[in-house]
Amino acid sequence: MNIAVLLFDDFETLDVYGPVEVFGRLQDLYKIKFYSLNGGQIKNKHGVSVLTSKFEDVNENLEIFIIPGGLGTRKEVENKLLIDKIKEIAAFSKFVLTVCTGSALLARTGLLDHKTATSNKRAFAWVITNGTNVNWNKKARWTVDDKYYTSSGVSAGIDMTLGFISDQHGIEFAKQIAFEIEYNWIEDKDNDTFRVE
Amino acid sequence: MNIAVLLFDDFETLDVYGPVEVFGRLQDLYKIKFYSLNGGQIKNKHGVSVLTSKFEDVNENLEIFIIPGGLGTRKEVENKLLIDKIKEIAAFSKFVLTVCTGSALLARTGLLDHKTATSNKRAFAWVITNGTNVNWNKKARWTVDDKYYTSSGVSAGIDMTLGFISDQHGIEFAKQIAFEIEYNWIEDKDNDTFRVE
Repeated sequence: MNIAVLLFDDFETLDVYGPVEVFGRLQDLYKIKFYSLNGGQIKNKHGVSVLTSKFEDVNENLEIFIIPGGLGTRKEVENKLLIDKIKEIAAFSKFVLTVCTGSALLARTGLLDHKTATSNKRAFAWVITNGTNVNWNKKARWTVDDKYYTSSGVSAGIDMTLGFISDQHGIEFAKQIAFEIEYNWIEDKDNDTFRVE
Repeated sequence: MNIAVLLFDDFETLDVYGPVEVFGRLQDLYKIKFYSLNGGQIKNKHGVSVLTSKFEDVNENLEIFIIPGGLGTRKEVENKLLIDKIKEIAAFSKFVLTVCTGSALLARTGLLDHKTATSNKRAFAWVITNGTNVNWNKKARWTVDDKYYTSSGVSAGIDMTLGFISDQHGIEFAKQIAFEIEYNWIEDKDNDTFRVE
């Protein structure tokens, strides 16, 4: 399966590299590429810089579209060109996975309307303002509705990715990957241990 | 504090970006830069590519030197130029942190001789052949001996980094970061839940 990871300035480091680590271990099954609206070098405040391809080069046979969160989403929700392009790519993707406030970007496209979604609980109050018709779930560590997977903060993105792997290849396969990376996978998607009531 | 992260082809993605996420959240305190032996673009099999500076540009006032693991270490332990440069930089660094099989590279310099260290438990049998005078601890999730921090696989590297933050700034400060990234920090460095007897 081909994977396109959306990057924008001030993305959250682990929102990206957590899922990349999990999918990257299955390089015979998943092929990862990084994209941004205009291509070129994308940076964040952690000192991370990534060379990206242009969004318009995303193949229409895309299987998995990953949208991370991070402080940059606060600005990018107002970037109409980016939101339009996310909508176009998400529409033809087989699956869309968001981490943290990445769900705010996806919500802005309208594609999450009347679907269940979640986000980082620290940023929840702001995220839900970006999609008033979304069924926001404030308890979930991650949600699955139709082809849309949305997760809470940083390590919930790793949990969700392992959940996706479990849905595709079975839970034992996902557990084996968690074991290999010595990661304590939280398998229960419905109860975010970090939620705030 | 200035942080230099060593990269080489086929490094493990999360061995690098786990610690980078934790230190990156404290950007007022820690400044991260990526280096490799010859500089330039460094790639791994997960599709990740990073632009690095040359090792010789590392400032001699370096506070933290991070050495990740990954399949690439199997080749790099034989790279005398790299090992010599690691030895030089590790010698003047205030702290050296290794993740996973990164401890095999550090062991090759001789600097871990008669010190306690650990590594990924999946690769342990191979790692210990790289330093026969090292006190290898096969139970620890991470170890601290003098200025050397060494950890087990991928997420143990995040645990160790939070442990380092705890040692520097107190445990409540470290717990707060774990909370912010919704990460279930394993605080007990002495018991790797993934160890094999």
